[in-house]
Amino acid sequence: MSKPYVLGIDIGGTNTVFGIVDARGQVLASDSIKTLKHASFDDYIEELHSGVERLLKAFDAEDKIYGIGIGAPNGNYYTGEIVKAPNLPWGPVVPLAEKVSKIFGGMPVAVTNDANAAALGEMTYGAARGMKDFIMITLGTGVGSGIVINGQLVYGHDGFAGELGHVIVKRNNGRVCGCGRTGCLETYCSATGVARTAREFLEIRTEPSALRDLQIEDITSKDVYDAAVAGDKLAKDIFEYTGTILGQAMADMVAFSSPQAIILFGGLAKSGDLLMRPLKEAFDKAVLPIFRGKTKILLSELKESDAAVLGASALGWEAKYRYEIPASNLPVVED
Amino acid sequence: MSKPYVLGIDIGGTNTVFGIVDARGQVLASDSIKTLKHASFDDYIEELHSGVERLLKAFDAEDKIYGIGIGAPNGNYYTGEIVKAPNLPWGPVVPLAEKVSKIFGGMPVAVTNDANAAALGEMTYGAARGMKDFIMITLGTGVGSGIVINGQLVYGHDGFAGELGHVIVKRNNGRVCGCGRTGCLETYCSATGVARTAREFLEIRTEPSALRDLQIEDITSKDVYDAAVAGDKLAKDIFEYTGTILGQAMADMVAFSSPQAIILFGGLAKSGDLLMRPLKEAFDKAVLPIFRGKTKILLSELKESDAAVLGASALGWEAKYRYEIPASNLPVVED
Repeated sequence: MSKPYVLGIDIGGTNTVFGIVDARGQVLASDSIKTLKHASFDDYIEELHSGVERLLKAFDAEDKIYGIGIGAPNGNYYTGEIVKAPNLPWGPVVPLAEKVSKIFGGMPVAVTNDANAAALGEMTYGAARGMKDFIMITLGTGVGSGIVINGQLVYGHDGFAGELGHVIVKRNNGRVCGCGRTGCLETYCSATGVARTAREFLEIRTEPSALRDLQIEDITSKDVYDAAVAGDKLAKDIFEYTGTILGQAMADMVAFSSPQAIILFGGLAKSGDLLMRPLKEAFDKAVLPIFRGKTKILLSELKESDAAVLGASALGWEAKYRYEIPASNLPVVED
Repeated sequence: MSKPYVLGIDIGGTNTVFGIVDARGQVLASDSIKTLKHASFDDYIEELHSGVERLLKAFDAEDKIYGIGIGAPNGNYYTGEIVKAPNLPWGPVVPLAEKVSKIFGGMPVAVTNDANAAALGEMTYGAARGMKDFIMITLGTGVGSGIVINGQLVYGHDGFAGELGHVIVKRNNGRVCGCGRTGCLETYCSATGVARTAREFLEIRTEPSALRDLQIEDITSKDVYDAAVAGDKLAKDIFEYTGTILGQAMADMVAFSSPQAIILFGGLAKSGDLLMRPLKEAFDKAVLPIFRGKTKILLSELKESDAAVLGASALGWEAKYRYEIPASNLPVVED
């Protein structure tokens, strides 16, 4: 095969990681740049291009890239744009696929959001290999999701489907969410949500806890995890609360698409039984009887450092969009 | 075309309706039998077969049927069985496709549940023509749903996906549901749910209402509708309450699959602005900003008397399962 590799690019709020990936899902080489260094999107794309070209040259892979897959916050599969991403500085709508394809000389590019990329990675190389129906839930700073039905990622009619971090888990008196509404799943079951629960519990409850030694505004989900592992009762109750809400929300997801598995990804997913025991108990109790015992709850099998690039790269194999170089800019061919 | 028709069969809790349908969705002839007349499934199938044969003979269509599509409560597309249908008397698992195909001499048969059949009918002949992503919500005695993504009905890994009547709309203190849990959408937004709301409101609230002249146990959603149309404030508030809960639940469905439209079907859907105004208001307020103003809320365009048969018949065109007649039973061919 003359073009045996794809390029995977993961645009995160802090770093943009890119890597050369082969058909077996080996990340052969990778590097990164700072996402927020440039306020101008064109400058960012220039630096990304230089970084990638350097990597390709070092790996002697300049003519061996089949396509480019990109995972980006609020990345839209249909338009190739980033639309209203809260933590990126380049304006409300950024023509990502167009600019990347253009700077790479018309290379095929496909874009989706980060959670969809993770789901694709899991289906191609991870815990969802061979599955046609599953849901990926990413538990990071927020809660994202990628839904696969009949072996296809669900994009919806507008390319934005799969926002399960924003289903409402508390109809009344719910927490304020960054999306402008209240009671969203991600205000409870993200890393940030766990920290918010800690602050709430410390204010309302009275028993002693190692967490009381910390500055209440600075508590992170990692602090809660460490305290829980050390046996702190209040910290363990925070995980109980988080897992219960997530398990109940997952039961409703099953009523929608009856997936073979729900796969959890991200820092919180690595909390072990602290999270998984209450989560599974709540899920089993809440799921509709006709689905009981059928849906597996699994952890991602991708190395977290590789997962984002792998997921994005999986999209590179099916990339179709190409920037069309205007005829006047084409090199003149001598007769 | 030698086989220009399909047979659509809709197995309801009261009647089983069947009809001969052409490729343009014309119901050319139809008839029905009583579903619950026979405690034995084989006896039921015999009577269904006789009824259909009579219809086919009268219409001179005996050799013109391409396939049979059946919508049935808890009908499973993958197995062709009816599984644990609460209101049917034939046992926990009924091999519907097998028995029907067998009695019709090996005719191809496909089975799905009634709400999925309605969605297929709507996509093939109704308000969802040309749509690849929509959700059908059936508001009857219960609440059912059929979900279409990428132009395909969502069956899930086990054939039972699309149980949106059983997403939880009240986590605390919710109404008891026939499924054994509490707080399901269908306990509030079905015809039965509206009647339950009426009983609750009449007990808790104190203002006068025409509904107080009725026996409280006998109140139906039709009574509530009639009172509301006549201007009864309490009856109108019951629709306000129902529409608000349904609109909020629909906003969560959009976060899952971002459909082009949600289509409402069934008696309650014909309540006009009484239901639709509060429903749309609640939906617009509850939907995630990124989806705001994008999802249409439509009413079914199928005649209710034809819809079930049409929906089932749409499945007949893609029916694949055939009962294989054992070789020993095949007619002996003379050399």
